[in-house]
Amino acid sequence: MIVKHGMNYLTVLNSARNHKLAPPLAVLRRQQFLIRVLGVRGENRMQGSKFEADSDNILRAITPVFDPNRHKGQAGKVAVIGGCREYTGAPYFAAISALKIGADLSHVFCTKDAAPVIKSYSPELIVHPVLEESYSVGDRDKDHISRRVVAEVDKWMERFDCLVVGPGLGRDPFLLDCVSEIIKQARQSNVPIIIDGDGLFLVTNNLGLVSGYPLAILTPNVNEYKRLVQKVLNCEVNDQDAHGQLLSLAKQIGGVTILRKGKCDLISDGEIVKSVSNHGSPRRCGGQGDILSGSVAVFLSWARQLILADEGNLIISPTNPTMLGCIAGSALLRKAASLAFEDRKRSTLTTDIIECLGRSLEDICPAC
Amino acid sequence: MIVKHGMNYLTVLNSARNHKLAPPLAVLRRQQFLIRVLGVRGENRMQGSKFEADSDNILRAITPVFDPNRHKGQAGKVAVIGGCREYTGAPYFAAISALKIGADLSHVFCTKDAAPVIKSYSPELIVHPVLEESYSVGDRDKDHISRRVVAEVDKWMERFDCLVVGPGLGRDPFLLDCVSEIIKQARQSNVPIIIDGDGLFLVTNNLGLVSGYPLAILTPNVNEYKRLVQKVLNCEVNDQDAHGQLLSLAKQIGGVTILRKGKCDLISDGEIVKSVSNHGSPRRCGGQGDILSGSVAVFLSWARQLILADEGNLIISPTNPTMLGCIAGSALLRKAASLAFEDRKRSTLTTDIIECLGRSLEDICPAC
Repeated sequence: MIVKHGMNYLTVLNSARNHKLAPPLAVLRRQQFLIRVLGVRGENRMQGSKFEADSDNILRAITPVFDPNRHKGQAGKVAVIGGCREYTGAPYFAAISALKIGADLSHVFCTKDAAPVIKSYSPELIVHPVLEESYSVGDRDKDHISRRVVAEVDKWMERFDCLVVGPGLGRDPFLLDCVSEIIKQARQSNVPIIIDGDGLFLVTNNLGLVSGYPLAILTPNVNEYKRLVQKVLNCEVNDQDAHGQLLSLAKQIGGVTILRKGKCDLISDGEIVKSVSNHGSPRRCGGQGDILSGSVAVFLSWARQLILADEGNLIISPTNPTMLGCIAGSALLRKAASLAFEDRKRSTLTTDIIECLGRSLEDICPAC
Repeated sequence: MIVKHGMNYLTVLNSARNHKLAPPLAVLRRQQFLIRVLGVRGENRMQGSKFEADSDNILRAITPVFDPNRHKGQAGKVAVIGGCREYTGAPYFAAISALKIGADLSHVFCTKDAAPVIKSYSPELIVHPVLEESYSVGDRDKDHISRRVVAEVDKWMERFDCLVVGPGLGRDPFLLDCVSEIIKQARQSNVPIIIDGDGLFLVTNNLGLVSGYPLAILTPNVNEYKRLVQKVLNCEVNDQDAHGQLLSLAKQIGGVTILRKGKCDLISDGEIVKSVSNHGSPRRCGGQGDILSGSVAVFLSWARQLILADEGNLIISPTNPTMLGCIAGSALLRKAASLAFEDRKRSTLTTDIIECLGRSLEDICPAC
């Protein structure tokens, strides 16, 4: 599409500058957009040739086929820890995305202020108003309130296939202390944990919470990744050796899986590195990371279920469920974002992308 | 559809494993899905041949024809007892489903925390913030608050055609004590009661609440049924004699009606057993049981109204209004779930199914 009537893009551009019969601005802008998009794809293809994950096939392999003998809960029970006085959208995005992909039950554990708002977004979610922030807790009550908060979440823990910690969590010190304890409980119960948003702030300052836990996934964006690299590797981000640095980082944190979000998503568990660079959307509206964390939670649960059931007969690679979950989640979000952008263009919002999750999944992996 | 080009399904599968020209994964998955669905249908047909209810005809027979002389309330007034700090979606699903099927008025009695949220889901519902949980009641106040709560519900009791007890009720001991009293009042007023969700937890631990009441319906899912069988029959669920065991269970609880939810719904009042195995949806997202309880409430009200008016001239079988309500409710939910799944596939949620209730009813029983 760049070559038009025997002229390449630059010829068209120069011709536009020098002649009165220049193509209208809209055409030029469309051409500029295309060259950028195609450029990015070409670059990724070069970069990712040996690392690029076979993401659509992985997604198909781990998504369970429907079975009428199954009952409620067997397709996944996910919980999001997040939602405070300031943030209510993020935990909703993560939790509703999990349902839209196919989980049977999606819970949110948030503060009392946040709960009625998150509930009002959707009657499909089960929202527990159990977290507390410093402003509502006296110093003398902190110990017993902390114990109560942790116990409230812990009584549900065994039922969850995956925990997402961080969307809209905020940075209140008392709340984060409670969440540290919740992470410890999840680890004891062998429940996979995805750490995103403010959860990454917490974990970057206390790496012991996840270090050495193979069922932990960190999903940093550009700034969160920078802080993580500085903290763990004691250096700056090195984009010349992005794969190698990510591998070292994941290894250094004891084999957790890291999904480094970007133009092309890079994923490593300290053993291998994979990239997902399928076409997405150029819109960077807030909330897409929350869709990703909710999606990864579901795919990780399915991959783990499959691996536990198959006992080694899997024909897909990689075989680490956290890697598989990240690859499938990244691929699905990219497809949904691309469909939403096709339809909504500049006004694409996170809710539009969520509305495209079902169609995207159906395109890649038809239900029947 | 399983036999393709002279090969059966296993041949196809083996051929796929052994040859380079294997069918693509998507084709195999589709075949696996079909073999399961067809297998189940075949099994149900065998199992259900003599038990299968004539559900569409029953639904048509009990759904009232429109009459311009009727006034508000005559098509049904339903109340849901449920909704607490944690759960607000479930009572909403039950109450709005009742309206979407054709009830004139739908009430919800819930806790003070839950009320604004449930109200915010829909202006169509009448939501009473009257229930109380232990955390908001001091020990010394319990007696008079309990009396007040029960009186608040009781002053409405005579107006209701049916009560649904349990969706999103929670398990707070004080709240459940109040609900026990509400059930007793409903029984005294001869108001039919459908017990679902946490209501079943309450009733399984106190069978006297419903035992011997012919206008009670219990709607257990797989786990709730297991607990009920253990408690009442002192044994495990026996799927080899599912019909016989359900019959014994209903008889043992003094002729209440039990709708055992599953791949095929089984219904018994201790006298007969009927099954509904129409095609539904393979999605098991939470909330479908709430649609069912709201639907059964409406159909039971209509069947009872019809039976009381006809005084024995009914030409349908069975003639017990609780059986008729369960059969029609189950058939309608299955049709709506099937339509929603056709459209939304893996991302089908409970609200999507509710949106299909009207069209499903119209397909089976056109309004005019």
